[in-house]
Amino acid sequence: MSGDLITLGAEPWDLELDPDRTAVLVIDMQNDFTLPGGYCHQYMSAKGLGDQAIETLREPIEPIARVIETARTADMTVIYTIESHWADLSDAAPPKMDGTVKVGAPIGAQGPHGRNLIRGDWGTDVIDELKPMPGEHVLHKAGKGGFVATDLDLILRSRGITHLVFTGITTDCCVLFTRQGAYDRGYHTVQLEDCCAASLKENHDAIFNMIRTHPEAFGLMSNSESFVRALEPVAAARV
Amino acid sequence: MSGDLITLGAEPWDLELDPDRTAVLVIDMQNDFTLPGGYCHQYMSAKGLGDQAIETLREPIEPIARVIETARTADMTVIYTIESHWADLSDAAPPKMDGTVKVGAPIGAQGPHGRNLIRGDWGTDVIDELKPMPGEHVLHKAGKGGFVATDLDLILRSRGITHLVFTGITTDCCVLFTRQGAYDRGYHTVQLEDCCAASLKENHDAIFNMIRTHPEAFGLMSNSESFVRALEPVAAARV
Amino acid sequence: MSGDLITLGAEPWDLELDPDRTAVLVIDMQNDFTLPGGYCHQYMSAKGLGDQAIETLREPIEPIARVIETARTADMTVIYTIESHWADLSDAAPPKMDGTVKVGAPIGAQGPHGRNLIRGDWGTDVIDELKPMPGEHVLHKAGKGGFVATDLDLILRSRGITHLVFTGITTDCCVLFTRQGAYDRGYHTVQLEDCCAASLKENHDAIFNMIRTHPEAFGLMSNSESFVRALEPVAAARV
Amino acid sequence: MSGDLITLGAEPWDLELDPDRTAVLVIDMQNDFTLPGGYCHQYMSAKGLGDQAIETLREPIEPIARVIETARTADMTVIYTIESHWADLSDAAPPKMDGTVKVGAPIGAQGPHGRNLIRGDWGTDVIDELKPMPGEHVLHKAGKGGFVATDLDLILRSRGITHLVFTGITTDCCVLFTRQGAYDRGYHTVQLEDCCAASLKENHDAIFNMIRTHPEAFGLMSNSESFVRALEPVAAARV
Repeated sequence: MSGDLITLGAEPWDLELDPDRTAVLVIDMQNDFTLPGGYCHQYMSAKGLGDQAIETLREPIEPIARVIETARTADMTVIYTIESHWADLSDAAPPKMDGTVKVGAPIGAQGPHGRNLIRGDWGTDVIDELKPMPGEHVLHKAGKGGFVATDLDLILRSRGITHLVFTGITTDCCVLFTRQGAYDRGYHTVQLEDCCAASLKENHDAIFNMIRTHPEAFGLMSNSESFVRALEPVAAARV
Repeated sequence: MSGDLITLGAEPWDLELDPDRTAVLVIDMQNDFTLPGGYCHQYMSAKGLGDQAIETLREPIEPIARVIETARTADMTVIYTIESHWADLSDAAPPKMDGTVKVGAPIGAQGPHGRNLIRGDWGTDVIDELKPMPGEHVLHKAGKGGFVATDLDLILRSRGITHLVFTGITTDCCVLFTRQGAYDRGYHTVQLEDCCAASLKENHDAIFNMIRTHPEAFGLMSNSESFVRALEPVAAARV
Repeated sequence: MSGDLITLGAEPWDLELDPDRTAVLVIDMQNDFTLPGGYCHQYMSAKGLGDQAIETLREPIEPIARVIETARTADMTVIYTIESHWADLSDAAPPKMDGTVKVGAPIGAQGPHGRNLIRGDWGTDVIDELKPMPGEHVLHKAGKGGFVATDLDLILRSRGITHLVFTGITTDCCVLFTRQGAYDRGYHTVQLEDCCAASLKENHDAIFNMIRTHPEAFGLMSNSESFVRALEPVAAARV
Repeated sequence: MSGDLITLGAEPWDLELDPDRTAVLVIDMQNDFTLPGGYCHQYMSAKGLGDQAIETLREPIEPIARVIETARTADMTVIYTIESHWADLSDAAPPKMDGTVKVGAPIGAQGPHGRNLIRGDWGTDVIDELKPMPGEHVLHKAGKGGFVATDLDLILRSRGITHLVFTGITTDCCVLFTRQGAYDRGYHTVQLEDCCAASLKENHDAIFNMIRTHPEAFGLMSNSESFVRALEPVAAARV
């Protein structure tokens, strides 16, 4: 571990972090949530909001790309999560299974490109624009929060990670619940606002209002520009 | 177990439940969050919003009282949670500890009625209006979500509970994160809107917008009137 | 759920169970622990005990085969666990990684048939004699206990499983710790003695002595014959 | 954090540790397990082994006293665990509850000095000889393993603890399962042989045979003398 601390400009206060003990999490940037025909598009189309949701959910792609490029150059840990289920549906709890049936996009149903949210199918691949590099772990989770019924905590602890930078989708669901799981387990957290989105923009904005109200409970917020600015010197030194 | 199912009117769809396998959770209805001089009042007063927050946070008291009265007559399980820390602060993780210092209401600091959020002090007592009855468990948690680092899951499972009815505060924090922890562990969940509040009313409303957008991820919503109507026949039969 | 209870002859007292709420667990019956050249053989060979260990560890194969045949005919849930790690070693915690290096069989090292304990390689395949049937889940775990950092609890709960029948290897390690994880989470447990083994027979026997001393802490013990006898009527009725 | 590493003589290899990131765990050294009339005495007396069990279980008291005295002088973290249940029995899972009834010492039953294993009663007090000092945390757990349904992991993480030294009782139950829970979560572990005991000496010995067979799975073993020798220079420097 380098032990050298850098300061990330954040709200409502800055965050000191050691890049060697910090991971960038890329939450659920998968085909099923970001492309026409995927789970989210099916589901939001039932409300007449499918195309709009996809457009909104793709906005963070470019800023995330910049963040992980910098993180890689700085030799930081990058971990992806994916929402998915085993093909045998063994991990689809009844409330979730029933809920997806009711909203018109059942887990495991055949969509135009594969079965909805099934591990190994098209929908649970990381999107082409943000493909993981060798050595970057892709973690599959059956729930919304990344810490429940997964090995995420074990993986982070095995690397000595204590600080987490959140990117991905959606702000009001999987990012929120993974982040909260991190907070309740004692991780330092910061969420990059422009690297996240919700299927409805108003929900994204509402969550950031909550972060502003309760930084002591939700953790901190920052953005891709601040992240790149803070990490670039580390990246430059390690090229 | 009786095995008799009743139907609770809920949105966006009704919920069938067995009262003997359902628990009413009363989240964090404690002095520190609902009375002048408590943790929340201190903290929101730093933003000039202390009195307003307390007023808002007390609104669910009366509807919760009606709900738990009905639940008791129907012999349902009622469980309280409290946010609190050991007096030695051993369970105050650095990000939470630091955050409460930064917002001006440190965990463990002496307030007018006791130490902030310390187990056994005034602030972590259930409020007088909603005192637990003998046999009703009060569960203390150091985090926001009730399932992390607690015995909540063990207690629910030991009683065969599969469905959870959420009441309490705050909608955008401890209720939300406990509820999400329940969802990711496979519990059926429903939240009673008038039995919950946030320190800012706009955050309460925003969360219920999210529930409406994502019932398959957040679970269902209902209210005290529907709950009482659905359970009264059970209560009447069991008097 | 059928709700019909059957009685399994067990020590020191019998166990009533509903076959529809009971799962047979087959713990770690994988190539790496049961065939020459695998992880266990490498490791025990360093002590001059490799061949003997393999012989002992293969003894439960036949009784397990009988148990799962009966379980399948009775439409019971059968779940396999496998000890394995991601190819990127992200879930190999330092104490475990270092320990396997020190005993001469490092996780991830190339053996004669594949990398030791790596998910997807030869060593982490279920052995040919006990191949899972379609619909039977194979759960991979990075630890010894099956409930830590896995979705086992979620999977069991999603099927309403409350009782677990343990088979597999090793009695003094992965079976023991998975079983204890089940006990501490409130599952009813019973271990079939002839369906289990340890790399040293004396350790297997010692654990069963402990079960006899502490049934209230370790759970119950039975054997393949009693299991088949108890479940055969159910199996016959369901053919 | 000092960052200075010391070497603890251990088998089958030594352990490097930072005293500031290491905790001594004192498992279940409580009246119910070590005094006549307590839970363990009642239970083992049903087999005619009550007095003998108590004698054996008290043997580690003196070596533990020396270990924690040294640890305190070296400013190390000392954490106690206690096996106990809420007075309302809400956390007594059916298999455990039933098992203790069957072995003749039900959880919650009135014994000569208090209710068996009830939090706050005589039986769940730390024994007089090993009373905690101010600032030393006493953690209550309803299971055998200290990491299930408790805040132990949160407490350790909040202090940056990565290494655990195990003392207490019993070797074949609560120490074993807590230790294994630690191992599976990535903690470095070492157990001090003379600071531990089982109700039957043969079970204690059998577990240490297993540790010798599988150090890569059970962790390391040492004793009070080695611990004191390794930590004394640290203690001397900090007086």
